[in-house]
Amino acid sequence: MPEAPVPEIVVGRLPLYLRALVQMGLEGRQVTSSQELGERLGISSAQIRKDLSQFGEFGKQGTGYNIAFLVEQLKRILKVETIWDVALVGVGDLGRAVAHYAGFLDRGFRIAALFDTDPAKVGTQINNLPIEDTAGMVPAIRQRGLKVAMLAVPARDAQGVADRLVEAGIQAILCYAPTSISVPANVRVQYIDPVVRLQQMTHYL
Amino acid sequence: MPEAPVPEIVVGRLPLYLRALVQMGLEGRQVTSSQELGERLGISSAQIRKDLSQFGEFGKQGTGYNIAFLVEQLKRILKVETIWDVALVGVGDLGRAVAHYAGFLDRGFRIAALFDTDPAKVGTQINNLPIEDTAGMVPAIRQRGLKVAMLAVPARDAQGVADRLVEAGIQAILCYAPTSISVPANVRVQYIDPVVRLQQMTHYL
Repeated sequence: MPEAPVPEIVVGRLPLYLRALVQMGLEGRQVTSSQELGERLGISSAQIRKDLSQFGEFGKQGTGYNIAFLVEQLKRILKVETIWDVALVGVGDLGRAVAHYAGFLDRGFRIAALFDTDPAKVGTQINNLPIEDTAGMVPAIRQRGLKVAMLAVPARDAQGVADRLVEAGIQAILCYAPTSISVPANVRVQYIDPVVRLQQMTHYL
Repeated sequence: MPEAPVPEIVVGRLPLYLRALVQMGLEGRQVTSSQELGERLGISSAQIRKDLSQFGEFGKQGTGYNIAFLVEQLKRILKVETIWDVALVGVGDLGRAVAHYAGFLDRGFRIAALFDTDPAKVGTQINNLPIEDTAGMVPAIRQRGLKVAMLAVPARDAQGVADRLVEAGIQAILCYAPTSISVPANVRVQYIDPVVRLQQMTHYL
């Protein structure tokens, strides 16, 4: 199967397909259709068929998709068949909640390193993981070969920390700080800002 | 100024413009350009000019945008000149972190009601706000006329709670539960799922 570049917007929908399919599997289901998947997700079945067809032939006309097989294929495409070790920088209220979130591991991610600047926090643990001093973050991340990081520091510190994450070899940053950060073209950033999401809705109220 | 329907993707970028402009204002700046704004956000200046032009004339050729004026206009367009009272359903680890998040109020939102099913939590307070029993949620929300809610319940409970939020008159739901929910066409939903965001990046690593 040739791995031609697929539009980002298509790749962006695959995690939603994966999430819904895993849920169906947990419900004991074995086969589904693009129609059913579309209804669950509020996406048209034609769109789903078109998206999936970019990566190969996953279903047979008339018999639908084998859920376990499609889950496996989507995990492979998204590169979450194995677990990514993730660095979390900033363990204030928000970072602490992120560190406690139980939903990462079975979806491909494990928080493997915690960093904070607060001397009162450094050396303490969350879920048996020690909080390390952000001062030693660059060599620590480099040594462990981490490629993915989550940023839960205040907005004013985000760019500085992001620069050092890039220096440490991080290639994907999930930014919880309510600000935009600049990174080199080979590094990816996604944002979690609940207020942006809320404001995207209030316009219509 | 005619309020013609503007594409959702354009409306979706306005909160980012607003956030960056507010930040510039806090830095003591008074004027900016689509170029500078674009660099901060990783969006082309042409895109920014085109987006803003859909809502009126906010800048003069050659003199750029007055930041305070544009902030005011964007707040008006996004309907966050005043504060929306928001219901938060589910105060587990995540909901509690959301309730403690200090970044809502100065961006247009105030958590005004907390709900949970756990008898051990009902009656206790977070930030002087009592946690109410989800059993009484529908009349409580209706009585207070709340239109916006945040959902921080487990995935398996999300649809049931969403149905009751809609029944209560909620028109915008920010869903932190890692699942898709179905709502009537007149209700808006946005999702916060960090794993989806992470998986959108790992494909490229």
